[in-house]
Amino acid sequence: MPIYTAPVADMQFILHEVLKVTSTGIPGYDELEPDFTAAVLEEAGKLARDVLAPLNRVGDAQGCRLENGVVRTPEGFAEAFHQLKEGGWTALDCDPAYGGQGLPYLMQTAVGEIFVSANMAFNMYQGLTHGAYSAIHAHGSEEQKRIYLPKMVTCDWTGTMNLTEPHAGTDLGMMRTKAEPQDDGSYRITGQKIFISAGDHDMAENIIHLVLAKAPGGGEGTKGVSLFIVPKVLVNEDGSLGEHNAVSVGKIEEKMGIHGNATCVMNYDGAKGFLLGELHKGMRAMFTMMNEARLGVGLQGYAVAEAAYQNALAYAKDRLQGRSLSGQGTTDGPADPLIVHPDIRRNLMEQKSFIEGARALTFWGAQMIDRAAKLDDAKAEGLISLLTPVIKGFQTDKGFECTVAAQQVFGGHGYIEEWGMSQFARDARIAMIYEGANGIQALDLVGRKLAADGGKHALAFFHLIRHFLLENAENERLRGFTGPLKQASKDVQKAAMFFADKGLKNPDEALAGSYDFMTMMGHLCLGYMWAEMAKAAMEALDAGRGDRDMLEAKIATGRFYMARQLPATALHLARIESGAEPVMGLPAEAF
Amino acid sequence: MPIYTAPVADMQFILHEVLKVTSTGIPGYDELEPDFTAAVLEEAGKLARDVLAPLNRVGDAQGCRLENGVVRTPEGFAEAFHQLKEGGWTALDCDPAYGGQGLPYLMQTAVGEIFVSANMAFNMYQGLTHGAYSAIHAHGSEEQKRIYLPKMVTCDWTGTMNLTEPHAGTDLGMMRTKAEPQDDGSYRITGQKIFISAGDHDMAENIIHLVLAKAPGGGEGTKGVSLFIVPKVLVNEDGSLGEHNAVSVGKIEEKMGIHGNATCVMNYDGAKGFLLGELHKGMRAMFTMMNEARLGVGLQGYAVAEAAYQNALAYAKDRLQGRSLSGQGTTDGPADPLIVHPDIRRNLMEQKSFIEGARALTFWGAQMIDRAAKLDDAKAEGLISLLTPVIKGFQTDKGFECTVAAQQVFGGHGYIEEWGMSQFARDARIAMIYEGANGIQALDLVGRKLAADGGKHALAFFHLIRHFLLENAENERLRGFTGPLKQASKDVQKAAMFFADKGLKNPDEALAGSYDFMTMMGHLCLGYMWAEMAKAAMEALDAGRGDRDMLEAKIATGRFYMARQLPATALHLARIESGAEPVMGLPAEAF
Repeated sequence: MPIYTAPVADMQFILHEVLKVTSTGIPGYDELEPDFTAAVLEEAGKLARDVLAPLNRVGDAQGCRLENGVVRTPEGFAEAFHQLKEGGWTALDCDPAYGGQGLPYLMQTAVGEIFVSANMAFNMYQGLTHGAYSAIHAHGSEEQKRIYLPKMVTCDWTGTMNLTEPHAGTDLGMMRTKAEPQDDGSYRITGQKIFISAGDHDMAENIIHLVLAKAPGGGEGTKGVSLFIVPKVLVNEDGSLGEHNAVSVGKIEEKMGIHGNATCVMNYDGAKGFLLGELHKGMRAMFTMMNEARLGVGLQGYAVAEAAYQNALAYAKDRLQGRSLSGQGTTDGPADPLIVHPDIRRNLMEQKSFIEGARALTFWGAQMIDRAAKLDDAKAEGLISLLTPVIKGFQTDKGFECTVAAQQVFGGHGYIEEWGMSQFARDARIAMIYEGANGIQALDLVGRKLAADGGKHALAFFHLIRHFLLENAENERLRGFTGPLKQASKDVQKAAMFFADKGLKNPDEALAGSYDFMTMMGHLCLGYMWAEMAKAAMEALDAGRGDRDMLEAKIATGRFYMARQLPATALHLARIESGAEPVMGLPAEAF
Repeated sequence: MPIYTAPVADMQFILHEVLKVTSTGIPGYDELEPDFTAAVLEEAGKLARDVLAPLNRVGDAQGCRLENGVVRTPEGFAEAFHQLKEGGWTALDCDPAYGGQGLPYLMQTAVGEIFVSANMAFNMYQGLTHGAYSAIHAHGSEEQKRIYLPKMVTCDWTGTMNLTEPHAGTDLGMMRTKAEPQDDGSYRITGQKIFISAGDHDMAENIIHLVLAKAPGGGEGTKGVSLFIVPKVLVNEDGSLGEHNAVSVGKIEEKMGIHGNATCVMNYDGAKGFLLGELHKGMRAMFTMMNEARLGVGLQGYAVAEAAYQNALAYAKDRLQGRSLSGQGTTDGPADPLIVHPDIRRNLMEQKSFIEGARALTFWGAQMIDRAAKLDDAKAEGLISLLTPVIKGFQTDKGFECTVAAQQVFGGHGYIEEWGMSQFARDARIAMIYEGANGIQALDLVGRKLAADGGKHALAFFHLIRHFLLENAENERLRGFTGPLKQASKDVQKAAMFFADKGLKNPDEALAGSYDFMTMMGHLCLGYMWAEMAKAAMEALDAGRGDRDMLEAKIATGRFYMARQLPATALHLARIESGAEPVMGLPAEAF
C-alpha cells in the first residue's frame, strides 16, 4: 500500500524563506505566519494520510459504477467527502460573503497539492466545484450567486464543466449543443457532452453543470457560444430542491486511470438552463474556469509525482540489490540498498529536483494570482497569464515522466498493480490531455501569450531573471546557479527572437517549435526558482534559521537541476532554429 | 478498434536497399530474394491483421484467469495459437535437424516485429519458447535436444525463463531456490519464482520451465547457480507425457498491461529437474536466453510503437479540428484534419523517425547475429554484444515515449480504453523493465561492454561510422546527414573518453552518466542508420528503383531525425561531463 506524508517542511520553506509571504504586502498575507500555515498544512496532511491516501487504491480498483442512472462512487468516498466538508477544506479561499474562509489562493494551492497527492481522482470532485464556483462568482447575477454559491462553497452541491462534444474537442466552434430561449427567461438546452469529470455521483444533493451551448443569433464558431447553469435538480425560489432536470448520464467511460472519478457522457434533453454572464460571450466566462483549471492541472502534474516519488524513495532505501561499486555500501549483508547505486540516485534526483522546483513555481504563480486579484497588479496578471500554459504543459509532461521514473525504481514490482506505482503513472497521464492537450498549451504560449500586449509579459518575465542575475552578479556562492540560469535565459530569448523573426512570414516556423519552446520555458522557470531557492537557503543557513540538513539538501538538489536539467534549453533552441522544414517537409499525403 | 498493417514496403527497403542481404555472403541469405521475403512478410502480415490484432483488445480486457490451478487464456487465443503453429511461424529460424525451417535470424526478426505489433502479449508465448529452445539447443545434451526441441520448435510444448525471486530481482546472487542432486542423476528443485511470463496457459500440452537454482558446492553469489530443465509434465523415455511434475502456479499477477500474457508466481515443491549445461555455470546458459530476450524486448519497444503510430496517423488524417494557420488546409469544411497542424506533425515525425530508425538498427543487429553464427565473425559478435543493451534500453524507452505521443494525438479519446491507445502505452511500459531494467542495461553498457576486450568493440563501432563519413565526405547531397552524424559521433566519443579518464579512479563518475550514455549511443546508432538509409534511398532514386514517393519520404524523415533528434547527444554529453558530484552530492540519508 503506497504511503504519503505531506511535505510540510518544504512548503514552509517556500512560503516563508523564498516567497516571504508575510512581508509581501498582499492583503490577507499578513495572517500567513509560519505557525498558522504549518498548522493548516499539518492538519490537511493528516486528512490526506489517514483518509484520502488509503482510498486511492480502492478508487482505482473499484472505479465508479452507473446504477439505474446514478453514479456510485467507490467504497469510502462518500464518508471521506463528508470529512472533507466537515473540516471546511472545500471553502478555504472562497468568498466569506458566501460562507468561505477568505484565505489567499496560495493557501488553497498548498492544501490542494496535499489532497491531490493523496488521491487525485477523489480531489477532482471538489476541484471542479471550485472552478464552477469561480465562474459563477465572477460572472453570475446577484441572484445566481445567492442561490448557488453558499451550497457550492460547502460542496453540498458540486459543479462540473461541460465543453467537449464527440466531434468537437479542442475546436469548440464546431459545437452542436443548442440553447433555445424560453418565455420565462430560461433556456432549453439540448445536446450531448462528453468527458465530463465528476459528471454524476452520490456524494452531493445537487450537481451544478456549467454547459457551453449555442443560442440563436450568435454567429459562427466560438463567437456564438454562451455559458449556462444547468442544475441536475432544479432549485425552487426558496432554495429548496425541486424537480429533476432533463439531464442524464449516458455512460461512464472506462479510462486508463483516475478510476475513482466518474467521467461521464452527459445528455441534455431539453434541460432547463440559465444564462451565466453575457449572451454569446460564454467563452470568456468559461476561461475563468479554464485558467483556474489549467493551473490546477499543472499542480496535479507535480503533486502525483510527489506521491510516486515518496514511494520510490522509500523502496530505494529499503530494497537490497547489488553492491555499491564505489564502496559507499551501507550494509553488512549480501547487498546494499538501491539508493547507493548512481543510476538510481540520478533517477531520484531527477524526480526530486523537478518536484521541488515545480512546487516553488506553482506557489509563486498562486502568489501572482493573489497579487493580481488583491492588489490589481497588472504585471502579476500578465506574468501568470504568460506562464499558465507553461505550468500546465511542462509540469504535467515532466510530472508524468517522474511517475514513470518512480515506477522504474521498483523494477518488476512497479508493473504490478498491487504496489500502486502503475496507478500514479496512469492517473498522471490524463493531466497531459485534459483542460487543453499540451500541444494546445504550446500553441497558446507561442501563438498568443508570447506576443500578447506587444510582448510586454514576456519581457517582464525575462526582466525578472535579468534582475536576479544583476543583483547576484557578485555572489560567488551562487555562481553554480547564476551561470546556467544566464545561459538558459539567453537560449529562451534567442528562441523567442527566432519566432518573432520568422513566424510572421510563416506561422509554421513558430508553430513547429512551439512544443520545444514550452519545454524550454518550463526549464527556465524551474531554473529561476532553483536559483531563488538556493539563495534563500544560503541566507537562512547564514542566519542560523531552519533545519541545516534540509537547507543543505535544498542547495544540493538545486545544483543537480542546474547541472543536469537546465542545459536542455540548448537542445530545444537547436530544434527550434532548425525551423519548420524538417517538420513540415514531408507532405501530409506522403505519410 | 485499432488497425494494423504490416510495414512490408519499409522492411523490404531495409532488407534489400540498405542491408542488401543477398549480396552479403552470409550463408542462407542468398535465398532472401525480394520476392521471397515479400511473400513471407505479406503472409505474416495477413495473420497479424486478420487474427492477432483483433485479439489484442480482447486479451487486454479479459486477461488470464487462474481456474483450479490452470491458467485460462483469453477467448480466441488458443485458436490463434493453433493457426500460428499450423502456418509454421514458430519454427522459422529453428534448426532443421529438429523440424525448423532454418531461415536466417533476420527473417525471424522481421516476422517477429509484425506479430509483436499486432499483439505483444500473445506473441510472448512463442517468444519465450524460442528463448528456451535456443538455450537447450546451445547447452543441452544430445538426448535433451532430441526430447525437447522438436516439440518446442512446433510450440506443442512452450517454454519459460525462471530467474526472479521475491527478494532477488536483478541481484540473482541472492537466489534461494535450491537444487538437490538425486540418485538417478536428476535434481529436486524447491523454491518460488516470480514474474514468470507465460508461466502457465491452456494452449500447449506441456511447458518446459528453465529454472535457475543453487546446487550444493557452488559457492557464493551467481557463481553457485545452475540451470535446470523442469517440465510441467514429465516426459517418458518414449517421448510420451508422464506424470505431472511438482510445479504449480501460485497466482497470476495483476499488471499494468500485457494482460493477455499470464505472469505467474511459480512454486517448485521438490520438482524433478534436469541439469542444462554445466553445473554451477548456469548463468552462462541463461545468458544465451537473456541476450536473445533482450534483443527481442528491444524489438518490442519499436514494434508496439509502430502499431500505436499507425493508429495515431489514421486519426490525425481523419479527425477534423481547427484550421491550418499557414493556409495548408485541405478541406472546405469547418476544420482541417489534425495532420495539418505543425505540432501534430512534429509529434508524428518523432514517432515515424524513431520507429523506422529502430527497425533498421534491429534488422542490422539481427544480421550481425547471423554473421556471428554463420560466418563465425568475431567482429559482428562484438558489435552486437556492445549494442544489445542499447537496442534493449534505448528502443524501449523511446518506444514507450512514442506510444504516449501516439495516445496524445487522440486527445481525450486517447485516455479511453475503448480506443486502444492506452493499451499500447500500458503494454509498452513493461519492455523498459523486464529482461533487466533499463538502468541495468546502461550499467552493462558502461560498466562492461564499453571496455570489454580492451574497448575493441566500441572502437569497431566508432570505426564503422568514421568509415561511412570518409566514404561520403564528398557527397554534397548527404551533407545534412554526415554533418550531424560526425558531431554526434564526436560527442559520444568524448563521453567515452570522460569515462575512461575519470571512471577508473571513481566508478561513480562513469555510473552517474551511464543512462545518458546509453541514450546518446542510441541516438548515434539511429543517426548512423538514417545516414545509411538516406544514402540507399538516394541511390535507389538515381537508379530508378522502387517507389519514388516512399524513397523521398524516407529522406525527409531522416532529415527530421538528423535536425531535431540527433542533437540530443550534446545534452547527454553535457550531463555526463558534469560528473558524479551533482548526482551523488546529496547523501543517501539526506533524501
